[in-house]
Amino acid sequence: MTSSLPKQKEIKSAVIVSKVYKRPMSDTIRLIADKLKALGVDVYLDANTSVGFNIPEIPSISRRQMRDLDLIIVVGGDGSLLGAARTLVDLKVPVLGINSGHLGLLTDVSPSNLDESLKNIVKGYYTLEERKMIDVRVSRDSKDGVGELIGQSLATNETVIHSGTMAHMMVFKVSIGDNYMYTLRGDGIIVNTPTGSTAYSLSAGGPIIEPHLDVLALVPMFPQSLNSSPIIIPGKSEVKIDFECPDDLAELIAINCDGQVTLRADTNCSVLIRQHHIPLTLIHPQGYDYYSLLRQKLCWGQSLV
Amino acid sequence: MTSSLPKQKEIKSAVIVSKVYKRPMSDTIRLIADKLKALGVDVYLDANTSVGFNIPEIPSISRRQMRDLDLIIVVGGDGSLLGAARTLVDLKVPVLGINSGHLGLLTDVSPSNLDESLKNIVKGYYTLEERKMIDVRVSRDSKDGVGELIGQSLATNETVIHSGTMAHMMVFKVSIGDNYMYTLRGDGIIVNTPTGSTAYSLSAGGPIIEPHLDVLALVPMFPQSLNSSPIIIPGKSEVKIDFECPDDLAELIAINCDGQVTLRADTNCSVLIRQHHIPLTLIHPQGYDYYSLLRQKLCWGQSLV
Amino acid sequence: MTSSLPKQKEIKSAVIVSKVYKRPMSDTIRLIADKLKALGVDVYLDANTSVGFNIPEIPSISRRQMRDLDLIIVVGGDGSLLGAARTLVDLKVPVLGINSGHLGLLTDVSPSNLDESLKNIVKGYYTLEERKMIDVRVSRDSKDGVGELIGQSLATNETVIHSGTMAHMMVFKVSIGDNYMYTLRGDGIIVNTPTGSTAYSLSAGGPIIEPHLDVLALVPMFPQSLNSSPIIIPGKSEVKIDFECPDDLAELIAINCDGQVTLRADTNCSVLIRQHHIPLTLIHPQGYDYYSLLRQKLCWGQSLV
Amino acid sequence: MTSSLPKQKEIKSAVIVSKVYKRPMSDTIRLIADKLKALGVDVYLDANTSVGFNIPEIPSISRRQMRDLDLIIVVGGDGSLLGAARTLVDLKVPVLGINSGHLGLLTDVSPSNLDESLKNIVKGYYTLEERKMIDVRVSRDSKDGVGELIGQSLATNETVIHSGTMAHMMVFKVSIGDNYMYTLRGDGIIVNTPTGSTAYSLSAGGPIIEPHLDVLALVPMFPQSLNSSPIIIPGKSEVKIDFECPDDLAELIAINCDGQVTLRADTNCSVLIRQHHIPLTLIHPQGYDYYSLLRQKLCWGQSLV
Repeated sequence: MTSSLPKQKEIKSAVIVSKVYKRPMSDTIRLIADKLKALGVDVYLDANTSVGFNIPEIPSISRRQMRDLDLIIVVGGDGSLLGAARTLVDLKVPVLGINSGHLGLLTDVSPSNLDESLKNIVKGYYTLEERKMIDVRVSRDSKDGVGELIGQSLATNETVIHSGTMAHMMVFKVSIGDNYMYTLRGDGIIVNTPTGSTAYSLSAGGPIIEPHLDVLALVPMFPQSLNSSPIIIPGKSEVKIDFECPDDLAELIAINCDGQVTLRADTNCSVLIRQHHIPLTLIHPQGYDYYSLLRQKLCWGQSLV
Repeated sequence: MTSSLPKQKEIKSAVIVSKVYKRPMSDTIRLIADKLKALGVDVYLDANTSVGFNIPEIPSISRRQMRDLDLIIVVGGDGSLLGAARTLVDLKVPVLGINSGHLGLLTDVSPSNLDESLKNIVKGYYTLEERKMIDVRVSRDSKDGVGELIGQSLATNETVIHSGTMAHMMVFKVSIGDNYMYTLRGDGIIVNTPTGSTAYSLSAGGPIIEPHLDVLALVPMFPQSLNSSPIIIPGKSEVKIDFECPDDLAELIAINCDGQVTLRADTNCSVLIRQHHIPLTLIHPQGYDYYSLLRQKLCWGQSLV
Repeated sequence: MTSSLPKQKEIKSAVIVSKVYKRPMSDTIRLIADKLKALGVDVYLDANTSVGFNIPEIPSISRRQMRDLDLIIVVGGDGSLLGAARTLVDLKVPVLGINSGHLGLLTDVSPSNLDESLKNIVKGYYTLEERKMIDVRVSRDSKDGVGELIGQSLATNETVIHSGTMAHMMVFKVSIGDNYMYTLRGDGIIVNTPTGSTAYSLSAGGPIIEPHLDVLALVPMFPQSLNSSPIIIPGKSEVKIDFECPDDLAELIAINCDGQVTLRADTNCSVLIRQHHIPLTLIHPQGYDYYSLLRQKLCWGQSLV
Repeated sequence: MTSSLPKQKEIKSAVIVSKVYKRPMSDTIRLIADKLKALGVDVYLDANTSVGFNIPEIPSISRRQMRDLDLIIVVGGDGSLLGAARTLVDLKVPVLGINSGHLGLLTDVSPSNLDESLKNIVKGYYTLEERKMIDVRVSRDSKDGVGELIGQSLATNETVIHSGTMAHMMVFKVSIGDNYMYTLRGDGIIVNTPTGSTAYSLSAGGPIIEPHLDVLALVPMFPQSLNSSPIIIPGKSEVKIDFECPDDLAELIAINCDGQVTLRADTNCSVLIRQHHIPLTLIHPQGYDYYSLLRQKLCWGQSLV
C-alpha cells in the first residue's frame, strides 16, 4: 500500500496551508515554520492562509508558485486536507497532513511528536502514497446530444447525489461507460474512492477499501429498490448517473463533493464521475501503518457485549 | 471485464462434465453431445460423469486427458460449475456452463437457445473471461514455527471459517502477510473472491464486486465487535487467520470452501488464504453482459413499496 | 390485529376526499359516488376536494360537518391517506382508502373489485382497525424553562429530524420522559409508528412492526456512533430530542412529518414526540390480511439467487 | 419498565446458585453468604452448586425447597443467569444476579459495591422487574395431525433454528397462530424476547427492544429472500415454523435455546414458540437504569470517526 524506501528526496522547501482561522492555529503554524527553518528548509505560507492569519515573518506564496516546492503541509483536520487536495493536487507536490488535535486518517502527524517526524521527513526518510481522486461533472442534456457542462469539482472522498431534501425518493439510472448497469430508487447515491470508504460511505453501509486499490464504490442511500448492496467497480470506470424526481423538487437536487462543494442540477442533467488523471501524493512518517490507524479510529476489535 | 474479440480459437474437441445423476440430465447430455458432433466437434464424457450415467455412445476420458481438449462443458447449476472448477482449473482448459433449468451467474447458457450458442462458440465467436480462485490451507502450528499442513482446498466463491455450531462466538485474528490487521469477534468470517460476492457473502452484507477486479473481501458473520464493515483488500494479499474458541467447541471448527468442501481445524491451527496462481477461464456466448445477468438474478431495480 | 366482527354499523352517509387533481380521478370519484348512491348512501364531497374538481352533482361539505358522517373515503395512494389522516383524525370517523391504481398498504381497496367491497362495507360487513398516530412539537427553549411552541404536526408514519442538508452530521440527545437515553451522531433520526415501519424507516434498516402494537421505533440515519441499532420503545413514551449542529447549518434543520409537512427549528430548539390521543380508525374489507398485503408489497419470500 | 416502590418485602431467606466451578467463585459465594448472614438472612446453597464446590458451612437445599424462599441469588455472568432462569422460573422466586467480574445486563450487581447493594435489598429497598420468557417445542408431524412432542425447552433470550452447518440454506415457513406469515430462505431464523434483543439478535441486525414490552422479534440469519427485515410481533403470538432442507442435512437441524440447550429436529418437524406463562422476576438494586446499563455495555454515543 505504501512505497517505503529507505531514503527519498530531501525536503528543501515547504509551504504551510491552513484554513482554520483560530488563534491557536497561528501558534501551531509558527511552531512548524520555526522547526522547519531550524532544519534548513525554506518555509512559505499559502497566500490565502496568510490573509486569514497575521504572520508577517513567513513569506507568503501564491498557489502557482508552489509548483516548484518539495512539500505542501496542511495543518488542521482531515476536512482541511480534503479542501486543500481539491485545489492543490494538480501541482503534483506531495502533501503532509499535521493534525491540530485529533488524529486523522489523512492528517496522521500529531503535534506531540512533531520534532522527530519533521526531522526524518526533511532528511528524506518518509513514505510516499498515492490516492486517486474523482472528477465530478454535471451536464445539462442538449438537443444535439452534446451536454453543456454546468458544474465541476474534484473530490478525494466521495460525491453524493441527493434530492436535497430528506425522505424524498429519486430514481437513479446508472451506467458504466456506455453499459447500462441498473436503476436505483432511494434518497441518493454515493460514489466514493477507497480513501472515502472510511468516511460518509461507511455510515451508509459501504465496505472499507484498502486505499491504494484501483476501484470505486457505488453506495445507495436509503434504497427502496430490492437488493441494493454496495457495488465495487474498476477505478477506470466512467460512471454516468441520470436521475428523475418530482418536478417541484428538481431544483433542490444537489451533487455534493467531500461535504464541502455543492453543485446544482435538475432532472434534465446527468452526472459523470471518473478518476482524476493526477493522483494526490501523501507523505507519511516512516512506520505509517494504515491498519493501525484504522484500529485506533474505528475501535476495531473492541468487544460489543 | 471481458475480452470480446471478433473471433477466437475454434472448438474442435470438448468434454462434458456433470454430477447431477438424474434421468433428465442424461438426456440433456446426449442432446449437447449430438449438437456438438453435428458441428464437427469430437465429444467426450468425463470418466466420473460416465460412471453415474449410462451413455456408452460417448467415449469417456480421464481428467488428465482433458488437458489437450479445447473446451470443458459443465452441465448443471452454478454449484456444479463450482465443483468442477476446483478439480479442473489446473488443466487450463476454458469452461462453458450450461444450466439445466434456472439461469445461473456462471452457467449462463440456457438450453432454450442451445443451438445458436453452441454454433457460434464452436466457430470461435465467444467471450473469454478469467476468474481468480483462492487457495485455502489449514496448518497446525508446530514448535519450530513451521506449520504442518493438515488440509487444503481451492474455492471459486469463498471460504467460510466458522465455529461449526451456531451462535457460538469465536475470536479471529486477521493478518495480511506479516501485517496484523484486526481482531474480529463473531460467529465466523468469510473470505470471498469477486465471483463469490454475489453468493453467500451477499447475504452477510458484503458488497457486489465486479468479477474481474483483482481483490478479495473479508466479511464478518454476526460480528460482536464494533465497526465490523466488510473490508476489500488487494487480490495478491496473503490472508492469515488465527482463531480462538472455548476448548469444548474447538473440534467443531470448520473451514468450508464453496459450501462443498469442509476442512477441519482446532484452536492450534491457522488458515492461510491466497489467490490460486491459475485462474478459471470461462467461455461466455457473445453478448454476455454481467450487469444484465445481475439485473435478472437479483431483481435489480424492482421497486420496494 | 383487526377486530373482525360478523356485522358492524351500517353506512348511511359518506364523504369522498381526494387531493390528486387529475382528470381520471374525477371519473373515479363520480364512479364511487354513483355506486354508493345506488346502495342508498348519502354521498358528499370534501369542500377542498370540490374546489379542485368540477363535480357539481355531488354536494360539498366542510371538514367540520363531516363529524356526523359514517365514513370518510380517501381516493388516491397511501400518501393521500396520510395527508387526510393528519387533518381528519380528530373527527373520529372511520376512513376507507381506495387506491387509484397501485395497491397500497393503507389504500387497500382496489377499483377492480369496488362493487363487492362497497356493497359489503355499506351493509356493515367490514373490519375496523385503529392505528396510533404521533404528535410532533417543536419548542424553542426559553430562559424560564418553559419552551415556546414554534411548530406542531401530527404524523401517521414517522417524523424525520434531519440537518436539512445531506452528509452533515448532527448530534442528537434523546430522552424518554425525564430519562436520558443516549446521544446519537448522524445525519438524522427517524421516530416512527408501527404503521410507518413499512415506509421510510424500512429503507433505513428499521424493523417491520405489526401495526397494532403499542410501540414506537427510533431509527438512526447514517449513524456515526457505535452500535446504532434501531430501538423499540413503549408507545406511551414521551420522546424528547435535543440537537446540536454547526451554527451555519442550524437554520436548515428540518423536522419532517410523513414526508409532507416540514417544521423548522434551530439548535436552541427541541422536539417532543408522543402518541396522539385519538387513533386513526381504518375500515378494511372483510378478509383483510396484513401479512398477505406485505407479501405482495414487499415481495416477501421471493428468492434472491 | 421497572416498578420502583419505596419499600418492598424484606428478604429473610435466600439461596445462592452458581455453576462456574472455579476456586475464586467459591470465595465469592462464601463472601456473599457471610454478608447475608450478618444481615440476619437465612442462607442456603443450591444442591447442584453444593456438589461442585466444597462449602459445608452453608446448608444445601433442593430446587423444590427453594419455592418458599424470598430470593435466589445467581453468581456468575449473564450466561449463568440464563441457565438458572430456565430451571428456576417456575418457582416464582425473584432472582438477583451478582456478576463475578464483568458487568452484565442481567447480572447487574457488581462485587465492588456488594455491601450497600445487599443491605438495601435485604431491607426491602429494591426494584422488581418481570421479563417474559419463551417456551420452545419441537413436534414431529404425524398422520392424524396431532404432532408428537420430541423436544422442549424454555429460553430467556432467544431460540435459533438453524441448519446446523454453516452456509446451508433452509426454507422456513412462518405462521402466527393459524395465519401464514411468510416464507424465509436463509441459514436460520432467530425468535427472541426483548431481553434477548441485546444478545445474539443484535449481531444479526435485530433492533434493541425495551425489556418490558410485550413483543417477540423474528430475525433472519443470512437471508436469501428479498426484504428480510426483522419483524416485531405481539408477545402473545404463537409462532409456528416449518422447514425444509436437503435430505442429507436434515439430521443436522438444530433448535438452540439461549446458546445452551440444543433440541434436534428433521424436516418432518415443526417448532412452536410462545411466551411462557410465568415470567422471570428480577431484583435490581434501587436506581437501576436500563439505558444507563446499555450505554455502558454497548458504548452508546461513542463517536465513530
